[in-house]
Amino acid sequence: LVKMRNGKILIYPDELNERIINRLGEFGVKSEHAAIVADTLVEAEMRGTKSHGINMLNAYLERIEQGGLNIEDDPVIIKQNQWMALVDARGGFGQVAGKFAVNLSIQNASERGIFWVGVRNSNHCGALAYYTERIARSGLIAIMFVNANPTVAPFGGMEAVLGTNPISAGIPTENSPIILDMATSSVAKARIYHAKERGEKINPDWALDEEGNPTDDPDKAINGVLTPMAGPKGYGLAIVVDVIAGILNRSGFSHYVNSVHKKTDECQNAGITIISVSIDAFLERETYYAKINELIKFIKTSKPRPDYNIYLPGEIEEHNRQIAKRHGIQIEKNLWERVFKS
Amino acid sequence: LVKMRNGKILIYPDELNERIINRLGEFGVKSEHAAIVADTLVEAEMRGTKSHGINMLNAYLERIEQGGLNIEDDPVIIKQNQWMALVDARGGFGQVAGKFAVNLSIQNASERGIFWVGVRNSNHCGALAYYTERIARSGLIAIMFVNANPTVAPFGGMEAVLGTNPISAGIPTENSPIILDMATSSVAKARIYHAKERGEKINPDWALDEEGNPTDDPDKAINGVLTPMAGPKGYGLAIVVDVIAGILNRSGFSHYVNSVHKKTDECQNAGITIISVSIDAFLERETYYAKINELIKFIKTSKPRPDYNIYLPGEIEEHNRQIAKRHGIQIEKNLWERVFKS
Repeated sequence: LVKMRNGKILIYPDELNERIINRLGEFGVKSEHAAIVADTLVEAEMRGTKSHGINMLNAYLERIEQGGLNIEDDPVIIKQNQWMALVDARGGFGQVAGKFAVNLSIQNASERGIFWVGVRNSNHCGALAYYTERIARSGLIAIMFVNANPTVAPFGGMEAVLGTNPISAGIPTENSPIILDMATSSVAKARIYHAKERGEKINPDWALDEEGNPTDDPDKAINGVLTPMAGPKGYGLAIVVDVIAGILNRSGFSHYVNSVHKKTDECQNAGITIISVSIDAFLERETYYAKINELIKFIKTSKPRPDYNIYLPGEIEEHNRQIAKRHGIQIEKNLWERVFKS
Repeated sequence: LVKMRNGKILIYPDELNERIINRLGEFGVKSEHAAIVADTLVEAEMRGTKSHGINMLNAYLERIEQGGLNIEDDPVIIKQNQWMALVDARGGFGQVAGKFAVNLSIQNASERGIFWVGVRNSNHCGALAYYTERIARSGLIAIMFVNANPTVAPFGGMEAVLGTNPISAGIPTENSPIILDMATSSVAKARIYHAKERGEKINPDWALDEEGNPTDDPDKAINGVLTPMAGPKGYGLAIVVDVIAGILNRSGFSHYVNSVHKKTDECQNAGITIISVSIDAFLERETYYAKINELIKFIKTSKPRPDYNIYLPGEIEEHNRQIAKRHGIQIEKNLWERVFKS
């Protein structure tokens, strides 16, 4: 069932899903939780956002072994009223808490128009697109904030104080939703490691060296610090995310959020916030779709730059998904062996 | 009362406020509306964000004369429930609608925790910081989206389809709030005109020329198009703002939003959205302030880059305001004469 092609593993999504579930089962993860985690990882692989795919699995397993990832308990609602819920992830999988938050969001925002969910004490939840897409497919607009451990310097600074603190949004259309999923740093650290592996230089806007100067050398960048996206703007957004997803939820923030690779005997203490709004609360759904179609047309029929194409946010990833569905997911042999043969 | 210094006008905030109110009165603007507009313009002048200061006034007056700015009617609530309100600005001043939305936000979110306000059919509302700061000073966290007329190309494109579609956030602290106020384009067009006036080159990341290529020539940039901030990220955020502030509020979006300088016989049809959340709904206020203080300390005591300082978002503007309060606001003589001597 698993084939080799061009020195890579080629596997269909369902089969990869089953393998991940089995692997998680070996570590005692209950089947409901394993199914959710597998689904998020497979989807990231399908969408081509491989930094959030199966290469995360070993870090999760390590954290289970070291006691920092609670596989026993389900997330619990600490507080809920008609417009908000606050959830404690109890140090479990971020994916389980994230899916729980998504279900709460869809149920409540669909019923009454607006809903805000905060999650505290979470571990890594994978690609945010997974969650916002589900909400968008239910006819709701979703905005999502997640905080992370410090790897990014404040604007003007050279010490890691803020996380890559990503923002995601899901916007319903008549077809696939428009999905934004972006770090508020210039790039993810993975991109710098990727350049290093290939022996390539990096864009000097991405990182600072240990002296606080821009560097195009991936090694110096790895020992240095990431820069915020667009200078003061990404820095400001990263603070907003840390306050809303971290402080407001009484979860970790800044140095109180742990790396997915460190202090594996503790929860990462990340926070998640999802704000959902129902289209029906504002306008007729037909009117909404007509306007969204027009906006999409304005964008897609506008003139591209020489040698460029214009894609909607999430469009390339949706295309990747369709290909993966039909032809399977390609996985580097090294990664495959590291995850499934250890 | 108005002094000259270094060839510039030097005027105290209260006096400038009075002059703006008088000028608006000459065009028939009622005193309650004039007071709000004057307050926003003076505050922008004090904070040093002069692109949103009195240099906007003549455009407003022109629109009143041409019939595109309704000075008769107050904003009206079209729909309201416990978690949201939808407001029609009725083609009036964006500042009046913005202040109206702020008051609704503070009242409702303080009482029940979360509140979402949408505004349709608005004209230019000035600097967003004015609104989010007021909400933050009431102990609420605010997120604000406003859409604008197309000046920015989609990522990969070379035609203006999206506005500078700014995002603002206000975060309460024990002292001045943290205030983020940012365009989702690389820069505001004003910055390119500024470089042109000074005979300076621009950063080639800011704009494309008429052939769709990056340019460091301000003239070519003015005939070309602005780029989105951080490429696909700013592009994605601009779409999110256009959908939430424009389409969802049944206001204009993309080409349906008018420039502040064009089609002055019509409303600009801009949309505004403010999401407010009460700290009290999530945690004890003392705990919140203790954590915010710690986050601020982490940021401000982290090591700055050589020749840089680390400021919180809004910190420089607050500093400017304190100076303007004590020593007055400096205004270019040309601008002064254009606004008050015509």
